[in-house]
Parts: sequence; C-alpha cells; structure tokens
Amino acid sequence: MSSIDTQKLSNAIRFLAIDAIVRAGEGHQGVPLGMAEIATALFTRHLKFNPADPQWPDRDRFVLSNGHGSMLLYALLHLTGYANFGIDQIRTFREMGSHCEGHPEFDTASGIEVTTGPLGQGIANAFGMAVAEAYLNAKFGAGIVDHYTYAFVGDGCLQEGVGQEMISLAGHLKLGKLILCWDDNRITDDGSTTLSISENVSERFRVAGWHVVEVDGHDLEAVSDALAQAKADPRPSMLACRTTIARGIARLQGQRGGHSGRLFDKDADAARNAMNWPHAPFEIPDDVLHSWREAGRRSEDEYRAWRERVASLPAPARAEFDRIQAGELPEGWRQTLETYKRDAGTRDEAPGGIMISAEINDLLANVLPERMVGCADLEAPTSHKRSLRAFTVEDRGGAYVHCGVREHVMGAMANGMAAHGGVIPLTVTYLAFSDYERPAMRMAALMGLPVKFVFSHDSIGVAKNGPTHQPVEILASLRAMPNMHVFRPADAVEAAECWMLAYERTSGPSTMVFARQALPLVRTKHEDDNRSARGGYVLAEAEGGVRRVTLIATGSEVALALAAREQLQAAGIATAVVSMPCCERFDDEDAAYRSSVLGADAVRVVVEAAVRFGWDRYIGERGGFVGMKGFGASGAAEALYEHFGITPRHIVEEVKRHL
Amino acid sequence: MSSIDTQKLSNAIRFLAIDAIVRAGEGHQGVPLGMAEIATALFTRHLKFNPADPQWPDRDRFVLSNGHGSMLLYALLHLTGYANFGIDQIRTFREMGSHCEGHPEFDTASGIEVTTGPLGQGIANAFGMAVAEAYLNAKFGAGIVDHYTYAFVGDGCLQEGVGQEMISLAGHLKLGKLILCWDDNRITDDGSTTLSISENVSERFRVAGWHVVEVDGHDLEAVSDALAQAKADPRPSMLACRTTIARGIARLQGQRGGHSGRLFDKDADAARNAMNWPHAPFEIPDDVLHSWREAGRRSEDEYRAWRERVASLPAPARAEFDRIQAGELPEGWRQTLETYKRDAGTRDEAPGGIMISAEINDLLANVLPERMVGCADLEAPTSHKRSLRAFTVEDRGGAYVHCGVREHVMGAMANGMAAHGGVIPLTVTYLAFSDYERPAMRMAALMGLPVKFVFSHDSIGVAKNGPTHQPVEILASLRAMPNMHVFRPADAVEAAECWMLAYERTSGPSTMVFARQALPLVRTKHEDDNRSARGGYVLAEAEGGVRRVTLIATGSEVALALAAREQLQAAGIATAVVSMPCCERFDDEDAAYRSSVLGADAVRVVVEAAVRFGWDRYIGERGGFVGMKGFGASGAAEALYEHFGITPRHIVEEVKRHL
Repeated sequence: MSSIDTQKLSNAIRFLAIDAIVRAGEGHQGVPLGMAEIATALFTRHLKFNPADPQWPDRDRFVLSNGHGSMLLYALLHLTGYANFGIDQIRTFREMGSHCEGHPEFDTASGIEVTTGPLGQGIANAFGMAVAEAYLNAKFGAGIVDHYTYAFVGDGCLQEGVGQEMISLAGHLKLGKLILCWDDNRITDDGSTTLSISENVSERFRVAGWHVVEVDGHDLEAVSDALAQAKADPRPSMLACRTTIARGIARLQGQRGGHSGRLFDKDADAARNAMNWPHAPFEIPDDVLHSWREAGRRSEDEYRAWRERVASLPAPARAEFDRIQAGELPEGWRQTLETYKRDAGTRDEAPGGIMISAEINDLLANVLPERMVGCADLEAPTSHKRSLRAFTVEDRGGAYVHCGVREHVMGAMANGMAAHGGVIPLTVTYLAFSDYERPAMRMAALMGLPVKFVFSHDSIGVAKNGPTHQPVEILASLRAMPNMHVFRPADAVEAAECWMLAYERTSGPSTMVFARQALPLVRTKHEDDNRSARGGYVLAEAEGGVRRVTLIATGSEVALALAAREQLQAAGIATAVVSMPCCERFDDEDAAYRSSVLGADAVRVVVEAAVRFGWDRYIGERGGFVGMKGFGASGAAEALYEHFGITPRHIVEEVKRHL
Repeated sequence: MSSIDTQKLSNAIRFLAIDAIVRAGEGHQGVPLGMAEIATALFTRHLKFNPADPQWPDRDRFVLSNGHGSMLLYALLHLTGYANFGIDQIRTFREMGSHCEGHPEFDTASGIEVTTGPLGQGIANAFGMAVAEAYLNAKFGAGIVDHYTYAFVGDGCLQEGVGQEMISLAGHLKLGKLILCWDDNRITDDGSTTLSISENVSERFRVAGWHVVEVDGHDLEAVSDALAQAKADPRPSMLACRTTIARGIARLQGQRGGHSGRLFDKDADAARNAMNWPHAPFEIPDDVLHSWREAGRRSEDEYRAWRERVASLPAPARAEFDRIQAGELPEGWRQTLETYKRDAGTRDEAPGGIMISAEINDLLANVLPERMVGCADLEAPTSHKRSLRAFTVEDRGGAYVHCGVREHVMGAMANGMAAHGGVIPLTVTYLAFSDYERPAMRMAALMGLPVKFVFSHDSIGVAKNGPTHQPVEILASLRAMPNMHVFRPADAVEAAECWMLAYERTSGPSTMVFARQALPLVRTKHEDDNRSARGGYVLAEAEGGVRRVTLIATGSEVALALAAREQLQAAGIATAVVSMPCCERFDDEDAAYRSSVLGADAVRVVVEAAVRFGWDRYIGERGGFVGMKGFGASGAAEALYEHFGITPRHIVEEVKRHL
C-alpha cells in the first residue's frame, strides 16, 4: 500500500470517530484522532486476528486501556469487518442498546477483549493475558497458544498505582510478548501533563526491565518498525509514541479540550476540508474500506495453519485443549471435593479456616491444571502454593504467581487471565486488604468473569494485629456488589461445598472468605446434598415445640450460634440455627424456601463478627444482631470476642431481649 | 557519645523488641532489629521532637510506614521518655488495652503520628504531611511551621501502587523536607525479594527526581551522615539502607523467618550472649536509658526558641496560627453558608450537583484558608479549583494539589494532612473511582480524621459513559464503613446544610456525594434550622388524612419522590416524602424521632438510583424499593431511568404493590 493509502486508512478511523462523537453529542476524540496511525500500523501489519472468528483462541489480544477512546476500537472493529460492528452500530454510539457503548464492554464474541475505562485496569488485564498465554504456551507447546498481547495506554493508566504495579511485575517476569503503545500526547484533562508528572516515563519502564522504543506516533512506518522490534525483543516492550491529541480537529488538537471537549458539525466540516475527506458522515469510500477488510483477512492463512496444528495434536492434548478453552471442568473434579467433604466430617482436629481452603485447592492442583494462583507475598499464612511451582522467567509452566505486595495488579491480572480463557484464576490475600483489590473485583463482577478472590483473616479473629487488619465492614461492602457471590463457610464441610459452587460458577466472580483461626466442625452428620447451594439452610432445627427463635450465622460464628442454641433449648426456648454461607444464593431462592429457613414467626438474631449493615432484610422488625458496631482492637481473640460481645452468652441475652 | 555507647543504644531497642515479642508470643521482629541503628541515628542526632510535648506543632514528623514493626516505634517512645510508653506498656505489647497495640494506632498526644499497617499508606501519609508543612510554611513564614517529615519504609510499601504514586508525585512536587529510610533487607515474608521484584529501587526513585543515598544501615555514623545530606538536599530524599532483617537473632537473621517467625526464650538468651547484653528482660541499664533520655531532650532549646517565635508573631497571625492548630473554624464561616443556603432557595436555575459543591467551596476559599483540595485530573468536571492557586514547586502557598490520575495517594495524602494538623483536606474525584481511594478512606475512618472526600457523577445519571462510570453499589459500600458519614444532598439548600455538618465534624471523615446532572430545588421554603442535621427529615408531610405511605429518598431521587407523591396524593393516598441526606446521622437520633420520620404504620418505599443493600432497616417488612438491581448501562439519562424503572410512575406502582 502506498503512503497516501495508509493516511486514508488512518483518516477513516478519524472520521468514523468524529462523526459518531458529533452525533452522540459527547465522547472522547483525543485517543482515536491521536492514535489513528498507531492503530493502523498495528491492525494492518502486525495484529494476528480474524474478524470471522473473534474468539479464535490463538488471536493476538488487543486491549484499549485508555477505554474512554472507545471510538478508536469501534472504528477498527467496523473497518476490519467484525459482524457486530456494522455502520448502524457506529451511528448509534452511546445510545441505549448499541454495541458502541460509552466505554468498551467485555464481549469477546463481538471482538471486545475486556471492559475498560477505570484507568490502569486495562494494561493490568493485558499483563494477565500475557501471563495466561505464557502458561498455556508452556503447557501445550509453541504454536497452540502463542500470541502477542497489545495494549494502548494513555498517561492516566501509567500514573495509576495499578499501572505502576504492572510495570514492575511484568518487567520482573520478563513477559516478552506484552507490548504497550503509549499515547504520549503530553496533555491531560486538566492541561499539560507537567501539572502532575515530571519523571521520564520511558526511563521508569527501563528501570523495570522493559524494552522501550521512542517513536513519532503519527509516522506509520516508524511505528510499524517499532512494533517489529518489540515483537523480536525478549523483554516486554513499551512504544513511547509521541502524538498530538485530537489530531485533525484544528480548534482542539494538542490542547486540553482535545481530550473530550465537545465536537460540533463545524469541527467535522473543517476537518473534512483540512484532511481532504469529501465523504459524507459515516461514509467510508470503497477503496479504503476494501483495504481495511483486506487487513481483516490478513491472518487467514495463520488461522488455517493453527487449526491444522490443533487438529493434529495427540488426542489427549486435543481433548484437554478443547476442554479448557470451553471452560469445562474435567471428569472427577467434583469427586475430589466430595471425598474431601466426606472425610472432613469425620476429622478430629479443627484446621484454620484458610488452611482448609489451601487443602482443598491443593487436592485440585493436578485435577484442575488450568488453575493459576496469584498471591500477594503471603505464601505461608495463606498456604495456597503447596504443590504448585512458581511461574517464573525460567519456568512458564509454574501456576503460582508471586505478585509481591501488589494486591491491585493481582486482581486485575486475574481478570485478564479469565478474559483470556484457558485458565481459572485465583487470587489470595488478607480480607482487610481486599480494598486494595476492590477496583479489579468490581470489574470482574461487571464483566461476569469467573475469578475466585480468596481471602483469609476475615474478622477480629485476627486478634493481636489489631483493627487495621480486622475486617468489619468488608463483608458488607462486597455483598453490596452486584454479581459478586460472597462465600463464608463455617467449617471444612461447608468449605468443600462452597468451593464446588465457586468452581461451577461461570457467570461471575466468587469471593471466598476464610478465618485465620480454627473452624471447628459444625456439619458432623454427612449429607450427600450440597446444602450450601441454596445459600442458607437450617443447620439445627428447633426442638421441643414450635420454633420461636432463629439464629442466623456465617463462618466462625456458626459454632457460637450452635452453643447459644444449646443454652436456649435448655431454657425451653425452641431455637433453630441457620448457616448462611452465601447470602446472594439464598436471595435467589424462592420466597417459600426463604421463609421456611428464616422462620416466618420466629425472632431472628443474626450473628456475624462484622457490622450489621445489610442484614436487616433477614432480621426483620422484631429481631436482633450480635456483631461489631465499629472497628476492632488489638488483643487476644478471646478477649476481643468478649469485649465486643460476640459470645454464646451475648447471643442468648440478645434473643431474650427480643422475645 | 562513643561508638560502644551508640551500639548499646541500638541494642536497647533490640532487646525491648525481643522481650516484648517473646512475651506476646507474636510480633514482627524484622524491622526493630534490622532498623535499630537507623532509628538510633535519627532519634539521637537529627529528629526534632519533644517527648514532654508530643503535639508540638513544629516537631519533625516520624512515620513508621512498615507498621508491623511497631515495637521499633514503641521502644523509641519509651526510651526517649514519652509519658504514655512506660515499661508497663512495653510489657503488655499486643494485650488488650495496651498503648503498644499490634500496629501503631494514631494518637499524637502519645507520640504516634498516624496509624500504619496496611502497606503503602504510611509513606503516602508522610507525603501529605510534607505538603501540609510546605503550605503552612509559606503561609506563616519560615520558623513557625518548618520541619522535616521522616518515614521508615520496607519493600512492601514500595511495591504497593499507592507507594509508587507517592514516589512520582512527591518527586514532581520536589518536597525537599520529605525523607524516607528504606529498610533494604532483600527479604519478604515469602523469601527473597527476587521472587517478585527485579528493578533497581534506587533508580526508580532517581527517575522520579529523588535524591538517593545508598548506605550501610547498620553503620550508625554513615546513616547519620546520609541524613545530614538528605536534610540539605532540595529534593525529597530516599536513604537506601542496606540491612539484615532480624539482626541479632542468629537463628533467623537474614532469613525469611526473620520477618515474623516466632521468637522463643532461647532466641532471646542467645541474643543476650551474642550481643553482650546481660540485663534482665525489659531492663535497660541506667547509663543507656540516661543517654536515650538525653536524646529525648535534644530539641528543648529549639522548642523554647520556637515558642518565642510564635509568641512574637503579629497578633492576627498568632491568633490565626492558634486557631488552625486547634482545628477551630473562624468567625463567619457559617454565615457564608447560611447566606448561600438562603439565596439557593430562591434561584431559578438548577445547577449540576457537583457545581453546587464547587460554588459552596469557592465561597469558603478565603474564609477557610486552611482548606487544601486534591483532585485527580478532573479539574473541569468537578470544578473545585476556581479561585484556588495550584500548589507547586514555585508556589507553596497554592491550596490546590494537582494529583494526576492517582486517586489512592490523593486520599492518603489527605489523611497525612489531617493528621499533621493546621490544614483541612478535601479530595475530589468521581464516585465510581472511590474504590481506588477506599483503602485510604478506611484509614481516615479508623483514625477519626476529618477529611472531606468529595465525589461527583454519583449514579446512572452519568448516562452515556456507561456502567464502568456509574456507581450502583458504592453508596452502600461506604455506608457500611464505621465512622464514615456519607452525605448525598438533594439540592443546593441541602448541600449547604451538609457542607456545614461536614466542616463541623472533627471526629471522622465525611463523604460528600453529588450528582453530575442538575439538582432541581426541593427545599423551596426557607428554614433557619439545619434540617439535614438529623440525617433524615420529613420534607413533605402527608395531606388529607393519616399518613399511609412514606417515600424515603436521597440526592437526585428526592425530586422523583416528590413527583410521585403528587400522583399518590391525587389518588387519595396520604403520602409523605422523607429526604435522607445522611443515614449515619439519622441512625444516631432517638427512636421516637426516627419512628416519627419513617412513619410507624406507613408503607415505606425507598428510592435511590443504587442498590437496595442496607436500606431494609428503614423499609421494614411491608415496604418496597425503587432503584438498581445490578450494574448500569450506556445511554441517555432519561432512557436509563426509564429502563431501570426509576421514575415517578414506577414509584407509584411500587407503592400500590405494597399497600
């Protein structure tokens, strides 16, 4: 293609963006106009993709981390021929129901790899995709999962802490197939980047071990050469692309307003004149569209060759590859946990809560080889490494990622792995630090990614480390999140059941919450049913008459509720105990079941070593609560439970107050 | 002091830590044993402090960012003579009620500058202290607020995103009086730091514009020289102190177990032999204690000179200095907001919610000059800069900190400012990104710091930017946090009232939540009372009979509730509307008031464009809810409110369903 051709190709992106943004009355033109040449270089010469099969497992991944520039992505998907991005979609940018939403929303079937917008998440997702690729590449051999991961990124993503964590960890892990293109336009929404940053960003990457190429972002040939260098270099690469924000809009380009200042028809008209683009809005001339569609078919040979390679894999490898790509669990995984559950019900000793989770997951290490575990420098106290090897530069087959003290990128990495496919990611840290990971957890919930977020040290049971390390509000804050299932099992039996439910859940993330302290057995009678499946259930029914009281508890407090029930029953008060390992699942049950469990006419007292917020829907107007009223304190666990009034005696008192 | 003396001084720290940790049965010896010489150099030769007046406004600030090493701080406070850290406290380390809690808890009266433990927070707090110092220094002239801020920091703090954000921003702002001492022990809880980091940390600081000195952390003279260099250098300084973790415990030093592996009596005995420390546990020989107490009096002359300088300030400056140090608000501040409130009730146009907050705060720019505002690259859409100047290298008198896209360090900076005193910090960003700031918000709530966390774009009203930018669960997650007051005013009148309450609140943080869209007036009749003070109140009483329905709403949904009330009243259903700008304040009211507002016998329907979670305590068993069931979508605001069923029509239907 001649040089005038490539400029037309880039301008096609520009005018689709301009026309859509003018029509919508809002949008962010800075990115699509500033990165049009970079995108053209990548999509017409380097990216391995197939618009006819957007979910081709071995496609290169492309993440628009500066997701506000969504029209860049939509323009590319339209031009290269993705079925769900016809011109009608571009015309309805930002309207209800359009595929062209304000920010890109996860939809791999349509060509969107991941939801982006909250800054820093996208590049951290891309990092996770590159980890998954390296792991699967090692597992199946080169040529099966063997692709690059590209991310476009603006200044904001690189200022965010999660972005900085990613730079450090990706450099450490030397993920050579991760390539960032930085839109170095030196403008933010507030004005010059010099308002808030002085450091040499390229140098910051180099310190972390990255390969950096500095290039004119409007010189397509130079960008293409830089991409070629990046692909060849064994280090992760960052292309520092010097660009002009909103290039092509004379009134705004290179200015603060270029970011998202409103565009009008007259801006579009002026741009048409200046760039010699005499076509009507949303009209792409045939020759330009033809070239773009050709680019969309560039990887067809590679696609066919890949299919042949997969087809000629030995049958067991082929079956395994198909299985993990489909996200299906293998034969026997459930039996492993059923056996654990049966054995757990007969054990004498009471293991620490998080140790139960570690035991369960260790049993799955070989049964579910697609599991990858990230942990934030807490290997010993959370114990989910065990028989896993570390994922390192030398050993890409290791399934345990030492994330360092970087919870945020750990969570976002897991999202990227889940979006990539072929891998089931877990992350492990303390519950008190889930707040550090929370922006990524929200994205998992929003995207419906089946990440397992595992937490230990779930209450004042942490004891002497004090209130900084004692979650009290965090269970509530996570239960408030749509599409997040929060599991807090009471013992090893429930833990096995909850882990079965978490591994079965594919429509969203699961938060697995465990105590640090020992969880004595509360499910002493074996039952084949997964009782946790309904979220809450009657663990011990009232005896000696009509139920007058229902004690509802979770996790480590179920044992306290059982002890209180003994005292109440002894006093002639017919009392049931409900274990509620997962409120979200319970809420999905029908009203009759819920009412039968809660006890329509019973006084209900909830017991949880956390705040009451969110529990009133079960307590109703006559019941009570035994738990925390504020932050915790530093002291021995027994002293704290007594001090904060979370004991069988206090439960009995609370019941009597409400009877 | 001779060299043998200084070693004894450092060893006094070591043995207090060892004895306390052995007695407690747990603790983190790695830091106090590894940083004993660094601490001795700082506290005996450089730190400006006065144990007899721990809150001396011009003291150097000292933050133990690696807060798990709390025994280092407690040992220093004991040795230098802080009244609340007698040997009885050291002996009760980690026991309920001891000042020596598992992690240091904010208590400036006792000598603890800030709560630390969650990694990265402490150094970011220290950064905020340095900003406050520079601002107050510019305001009152050198010699009044003119001190250094020191922080001890481990590898974890520097891996955390918030730490990286701090490095970048502090370098940019060239805060020359901020000095970090890095405990470069090359060991983490998981083992060698090489498991998770490869970059040259010193170089990373240099890239960001820091002055770095590399030094042997066990050579007290070298550390002292490095501290002298750091104080003289105009850049922020980082002392990379090469240390051995748990130095002195032969079995653990330099090892992974050095971090917090359990210490036993035999370890203490061996250490006593090896370090020639023949003293009983918790016993400090007189000569050593005498030297330490002398060090504690080192700054007495400076202290007296400072008091004289303050005493000889011109009377207005003196009064102003005393006022802001006491955290008292000036004459007239309230009148400014009362006037705004009165005028707001007569305005014709309906300003955008966040613009109302901006107007109010702009009126206070000169009235409350101690306000400092941080904003995360959203100056225009959130508009809280206006007549403020930027805080820059050249202009330390600017009160607006351009934080860049770094929400987390912004929040932690504000905590450091509030802990420093003399400054009232606000932070401003979008509510959807409060999750990025949340770990700092939790620390503000835990410490009881009066930070104002301001948020815009508070619901699906954000519209076309889509679900990433639409908070639905975030109000609930913040209301779940103990000691956090969440204000969501309905119009400009309520906004003025809520801002009065926020500025009056000194016992904890306030979250101020505003819509992006216009907030039409709902408080059209002027009332002198601050009706928002009780958290919730009857905005429109039922008419034409006994109240049958109570609609409870917040923020932008109050106007919808009023419109629904019109329809219900027209249908003969006596309906009241309750505005609930602050649930936490409402919950603090007595039961009689709460019952009168909610309507004991009324059907109650809550209306909020967010999830129901947490609202059931007001809804009761017969009521309903109109709001969000999951994440939002991208589209026009009207289309979204209709799609999600948050309109007067839907409210009326929900009421009728429950009547």
